Amino acid sequence: AHPVYANLPTTVFEEMSGLARELGAINLGQGFPDDPGPLAIRQKAADEVLNGYNQYPPMAGLPQLREAVAGHYGRSQGLDLDWKTEVTVTSGATEALAAAFLALVEPGDEVVVFQPVYDAYLPLIRRAGGVPRLVRLEPPHWRFDRAMLAAAFTDKTRFVVLNNPINPAGVVLPREDLELLAEFCVAHDVTAICDEVWEQVVFDRAAHIPLMSLPNMRGRTVKIGSAGKMFGLTGWKVGFLCAAPELTHALARAHQFLTFTTPPSLQAAVAFGLDEPGDWFTAMPAGLARSRDRLGEGLTREGFKVLASQGTYFLNVDLAASGVSEPDRAFALRAVKEAGVAAIPVSALYEADPVTSILRLCFSKGDATLDGGIERLARAR
Amino acid sequence: AHPVYANLPTTVFEEMSGLARELGAINLGQGFPDDPGPLAIRQKAADEVLNGYNQYPPMAGLPQLREAVAGHYGRSQGLDLDWKTEVTVTSGATEALAAAFLALVEPGDEVVVFQPVYDAYLPLIRRAGGVPRLVRLEPPHWRFDRAMLAAAFTDKTRFVVLNNPINPAGVVLPREDLELLAEFCVAHDVTAICDEVWEQVVFDRAAHIPLMSLPNMRGRTVKIGSAGKMFGLTGWKVGFLCAAPELTHALARAHQFLTFTTPPSLQAAVAFGLDEPGDWFTAMPAGLARSRDRLGEGLTREGFKVLASQGTYFLNVDLAASGVSEPDRAFALRAVKEAGVAAIPVSALYEADPVTSILRLCFSKGDATLDGGIERLARAR
Ligand SMILES: CSCCC(=O)C(=O)O
Ligand SMILES: CSCCC(=O)C(=O)O
Repeated sequence: AHPVYANLPTTVFEEMSGLARELGAINLGQGFPDDPGPLAIRQKAADEVLNGYNQYPPMAGLPQLREAVAGHYGRSQGLDLDWKTEVTVTSGATEALAAAFLALVEPGDEVVVFQPVYDAYLPLIRRAGGVPRLVRLEPPHWRFDRAMLAAAFTDKTRFVVLNNPINPAGVVLPREDLELLAEFCVAHDVTAICDEVWEQVVFDRAAHIPLMSLPNMRGRTVKIGSAGKMFGLTGWKVGFLCAAPELTHALARAHQFLTFTTPPSLQAAVAFGLDEPGDWFTAMPAGLARSRDRLGEGLTREGFKVLASQGTYFLNVDLAASGVSEPDRAFALRAVKEAGVAAIPVSALYEADPVTSILRLCFSKGDATLDGGIERLARAR
Repeated sequence: AHPVYANLPTTVFEEMSGLARELGAINLGQGFPDDPGPLAIRQKAADEVLNGYNQYPPMAGLPQLREAVAGHYGRSQGLDLDWKTEVTVTSGATEALAAAFLALVEPGDEVVVFQPVYDAYLPLIRRAGGVPRLVRLEPPHWRFDRAMLAAAFTDKTRFVVLNNPINPAGVVLPREDLELLAEFCVAHDVTAICDEVWEQVVFDRAAHIPLMSLPNMRGRTVKIGSAGKMFGLTGWKVGFLCAAPELTHALARAHQFLTFTTPPSLQAAVAFGLDEPGDWFTAMPAGLARSRDRLGEGLTREGFKVLASQGTYFLNVDLAASGVSEPDRAFALRAVKEAGVAAIPVSALYEADPVTSILRLCFSKGDATLDGGIERLARAR
C-alpha cells in the first residue's frame, strides 16, 4: 500500500459512529441531523428515481443543477458565477476536495492548512505530492493573525485550504480575517481551496462571506459547497466545485476519473430545492440555533464550560475548564463506552501539538436526543 | 494544474454524448441502456429516499449491501468473500478504480495495462506515480499470448489491470488466458486489479470467470464490480471493491477520503436487487443478446463487417473491412454531425500505435433506436 494510506487510522467520525452503532449510544459525534430533511426535496428525488432518468448524466452535472447552484450563490452571497464554465457537480464535498487536490497540487508544492484540520485534507494533499504547512488555531477564539500567516507562507506556497465556517470550531470568520488571508494569497500568488460546506448553517447575526468575493480572489479561489449540509441530507453526497474557467477545466479532468458523475435523481432534487427553497434557509438555521442553545444551556447547568458556536452543527466543551482533567480522547472513549454518548475529541483533528481539552458535540438533533446526551455527558464527568 | 490533467482531453464517452445531446443524434456511443431498469429496484430506492435514512451510512457501505454482494458472488461465481473484511461499497466503479490505484500504487511501480484501455486507467495510474506498460490487443480476437506478457512484465511490475469482459472488445476471456495471466502474476508477485463491471453482461454460452477464483490469485486480486452495469442503472454510481482483508484495509483508507460514502437509499435498493433478482440475471443478457443480433444483422445487411461480441453492451464494426477508408475518428465525427448517430472510435482508447479502423456501437437500446442507428450509419458510409 502507498505510505499515505498504510498507517492511516479510520477517520475519527467513522470510528465514533461505529462505536455508537455498536454500543447503541446517543451519537453526538459525526455531524448529521436527526431530522429527515425537506419533504418536498425527498419527494422530488423519489419521483425522479422511480419515473425519471437513471443513466449517466452529463459529467459536469445536470444543467439545471449547475444553473441552480449559480443562481443560489448569486442570491445568497452576491457571487456572479457562469454555470457553464464555473460550476461542476461532484459526489459530495469529499470528492470535490479530492478533485481539487489531485487536479491542482504538484509534487513539492507547499499547502498552508489550519489546525484543527478536517481529516481528509492532509492525506489528500500528501497523496497529491504536496507538503502541508500547518497553522495552529486555539480555543476559545480559533482565530489566525498576521504573524501566524507570515510564519506559514513561504515562496514555495502554492495553495491554502480554508474551512469557513470552521468545523470543529463553530467560528464564522469576519471580513477582516478573510482580508488578511486574501492579502497573503495575492502577495504569494497562492490559490485558495475553500471548503465552505457550512455556509448555510450560520446563526444569530453572523454572515458567511465567501473568500471568492474578496478583491483579487475571484480567479484564485476554488469554492466547495455541499447539498448534504445545505439541506440536512448528509447521505446524498451531492457537492459543488465553483471556480474560474481555467481552474474548472483542471478540476473537471480530475472529477471525470474520480466518480465521473453523480446520481441524476438526487441532482434533480437538489436543483429543485435550490430553486424553490421556501423558508428553508432561514427556518433551518433558526431551528439549529434553538438546538444549540438547548444543548449549551443544559451542559452549562451540568457544570460544563461551553464555547460559543456561530455556525456548523457543532459546539465545543472545554473539558479542562469544566474540571475534567482527562484528555479529550480518553474522556470521549469513556463517555461512549460507559455513559452511552459519542462525541468527537478535537485532538484527533490536530496533526502536531494537539489541543487536548476540547470535546466537539453535534446539536443537529431532536430535543430528546439532546437531553439524553446532556444527562449522559454529566454522568461521564 | 498537475501535468496529468493539464493536457487531458475530455473522455471520449462524454465528448460523443455531448455531441449527441447537442445535435439531437441517436446515441450508440457511451454505454447505457434505453430501458429504465428493474421497476422493483427503483420502487425500493424511491421508498428509501422518501421514507428511509438519508444520512451518512457506514463508510464501507450498508451491511446488508455488503452481505448481498458477497452472497451474489458466492452464488454466481463461486467466490467465498467475507463481507465484513473483504467488501467495500464505492460511488461507482470509477471511484473503485481511483481508490485502488491511489491506495496501492507507489511512485515508480510498473503497471501492466492492456490496450484498448478504458480511459480512466492511465491518468489514475500516472497520478498515483505508477508507470504504465502497455500490451496492445488487436481485432478481431483481441487476445494476449505468452510472448506479449513476457515483453510487458519486468522485475519492477507490481500490478496488472485486467478488464474482463473486455470493453470495447466484447470479449469474455477463456480460462486458459486467465491461467496464463495468473502464471505471470504469481511469478512476478504482482497484484491484479480486475475491472469486472461487465461480469453479468455475457451472452450465449460464454461464462465470466473471475480472475480471483484462479489458484494463488485469491489474495492478490482486487475485484471491481458495478451495480449500475448489473442492473442497467448506470447513473446510480454504486460500485464494489472486493479483496483480501489486507488489501481491503488500504482500499478503505483511500475510499474514506475520495467520497467517504454512497447514498444509502441507492445502496439499500441494490441490496434488495441482489437478494431478490428474480430472473433478471438471465432475462437481461437474453434481451441484450437479441439487441446485439438485431444491430449486427442490420449492419451486416448494410454491408458493414461486424465483429463478434460475447459480452458488454458493445459490438464493433471493422470500417476498413467494410470498405470505409476513413479513420474511425473522422468517420465517427462525420456520422454524428452529418448522419445523426454517435459511436465511439476505438482509436481513442489506445495511447500508442492505435488501431484506427474500429467503431464501437452500443446495442443496449430499444429496437427503434437500433433500426434508426443502422439506417444512419448506412447513410454515413
Ligand atoms: C464525512 S463524516 C464527517 C461529517 C462532518 O462533517 C463532521 O462530523 O465533521
Ligand atoms: C463512464 S462513461 C463510459 C461508460 C462505459 O462504460 C462505456 O461507454 O464504455
